[in-house]
Amino acid sequence: MVLSFRSLGRSGAARGRRHCVAWTALVMSALAWSAIAAAAVDPLPSWQDADAKRTLVQFVQAVTDPTSRDYVPPAERVAVFDNDGTLWSEQPAYFQLLFAIDRIRALAPAHPEWKTTQPFKAALEGDMAALAAGGEHALLELVMASHAGNSTEEFRGIVRQWLATARHPTLERPYTGLVYQPMLELLGYLRANGFKTFIVSGGGIEFVRAFAEEVYGVPPEQVIGSSIRTKYELRDGKPVLVRLPEINFIDDKAGKPVGINQHIGRRPILAFGNSDGDFEMLEWTTAGDGPRPGLILHHDDSGREFAYDRKSHVGRLERGFDEAGRRGWVLVSMKNDWRAIYPAP
Amino acid sequence: MVLSFRSLGRSGAARGRRHCVAWTALVMSALAWSAIAAAAVDPLPSWQDADAKRTLVQFVQAVTDPTSRDYVPPAERVAVFDNDGTLWSEQPAYFQLLFAIDRIRALAPAHPEWKTTQPFKAALEGDMAALAAGGEHALLELVMASHAGNSTEEFRGIVRQWLATARHPTLERPYTGLVYQPMLELLGYLRANGFKTFIVSGGGIEFVRAFAEEVYGVPPEQVIGSSIRTKYELRDGKPVLVRLPEINFIDDKAGKPVGINQHIGRRPILAFGNSDGDFEMLEWTTAGDGPRPGLILHHDDSGREFAYDRKSHVGRLERGFDEAGRRGWVLVSMKNDWRAIYPAP
Repeated sequence: MVLSFRSLGRSGAARGRRHCVAWTALVMSALAWSAIAAAAVDPLPSWQDADAKRTLVQFVQAVTDPTSRDYVPPAERVAVFDNDGTLWSEQPAYFQLLFAIDRIRALAPAHPEWKTTQPFKAALEGDMAALAAGGEHALLELVMASHAGNSTEEFRGIVRQWLATARHPTLERPYTGLVYQPMLELLGYLRANGFKTFIVSGGGIEFVRAFAEEVYGVPPEQVIGSSIRTKYELRDGKPVLVRLPEINFIDDKAGKPVGINQHIGRRPILAFGNSDGDFEMLEWTTAGDGPRPGLILHHDDSGREFAYDRKSHVGRLERGFDEAGRRGWVLVSMKNDWRAIYPAP
Repeated sequence: MVLSFRSLGRSGAARGRRHCVAWTALVMSALAWSAIAAAAVDPLPSWQDADAKRTLVQFVQAVTDPTSRDYVPPAERVAVFDNDGTLWSEQPAYFQLLFAIDRIRALAPAHPEWKTTQPFKAALEGDMAALAAGGEHALLELVMASHAGNSTEEFRGIVRQWLATARHPTLERPYTGLVYQPMLELLGYLRANGFKTFIVSGGGIEFVRAFAEEVYGVPPEQVIGSSIRTKYELRDGKPVLVRLPEINFIDDKAGKPVGINQHIGRRPILAFGNSDGDFEMLEWTTAGDGPRPGLILHHDDSGREFAYDRKSHVGRLERGFDEAGRRGWVLVSMKNDWRAIYPAP
């Protein structure tokens, strides 16, 4: 545009300026339109235009293009996602543990002995250090006391009630407001391209199911998780499934591929996690043929969320962090890859 | 037509006959057309126009009609089907047991001790009476020896190879040719109406998955069944899931609602079985709100398939037979409700 004004005289220049204003308006309007159009077609607006997003978009284009040598029929488009720290936050503790503590408090009046017995005493006093000191055994005891003894339908109601009323201790939102906006977009983008999206959580399968459909659009049959045993029985002639205080399955680490095979029965073509609990899930997924991205969310954003990795008690990322490069897994930086963290309140 | 000829004279009668021929041709042509049209829209052509079919069609119309008070959103349209004796034949023995026996024979050269040890001796000699005498323990031993020790992928290949080559001892078809044509139509009809169709089998989950997608159109993530444990490990640096000789879950009787909840996480709205192993699945399904048909296939067709119920060792139907009426469950008569049994070879 500028070049074309060089030979113009004064009045020509005036005309040129008017033309220029008109042209500029036109060009800006066109730019605005194209920005709107781009926004309308960008399925991942909360992702920065960087490597992680490009990997995801190129992968989806390749497996959905019938002329591509990497084409995958819709029935085989299975993507698996960890939940805690991958789809929603997990600090200062797994939200399910905070639920268990609240539940212990609600049940405490019927259990006066808990005031003096660990790990219940620690739970009632909110003493997370004492809880952590009790290790896995203490956590299992808490889970059994807080998650068993009711029917599957009663339990889901209890979790829903808690999610509807509880607030995160520092972020002051309901827990379901602490899901990651970029991940909601990714789940929707994959489903719009014929994928089935599964959650593969170390957390409890029924806990996650209580909100996964409403919050993530993931139906209960696509939630895999840890579980306690259930028993079929009749109560007043009506059948119920009673939740027993016995571990059925731990869906973590090497348990994740086992759970994936048990529930899905085929190897996913995309896996997304954030901690070493997801290592084997990524290893299993990416060992298949064809393009199979493995992605690890790196919590490196202390300003907008939390920053933690190899030293964290919750969501420790050490082996995955060290081996991502040589395994071709993508480290997604919360700080640099994400424009937004949570949905607008 | 006949009445209108009464007043015609001789020549009139001749004209009448010509007219009659023309009319008859017209009417027959119209009938043929309407038959063709009906066939084109009838989703269950192998079902007789009787109570069972009417129940199914009225149910599907009610739950898919947004103006019906019984409307069910697509996400909740879950239908569950037993496999052995419901989707394919199960006589003279569960086909998976016949597979196990063939597998024992294939492995026998490496196990000379089997020639003199029960239940292997009975399996090698095809002595079904001796096998039956060994009871559940003998069957479990056979399953462990024939189903474990390989990876999930190797096992699926072994089952597929067997299905591709083995023939039923009396019906002289491949086993996958012994699926029920009316049930294939029902599965397709439900899916065309937004249902997810699940198989809930007492048989092995990986055994059924080896053919369910190709034969029934049911993907592996919609197969629930009994299972042995698997273990994640690396073989030459490649991850595999190794099948262990340990029972993980028995998906039969009261185990069926447990398996349904574990895999699906919501109550089905239709259940179809054939034996008392399906009783609790029907009880659990039909105890929900709204119309929830429970159907039991009654093997009463010795001419075209087999006739057995309360005295049978395989697929015994006693309690379900006695209680179907008062529970409002539909007994489907293979003889009277089905026009065809198997697909055309």
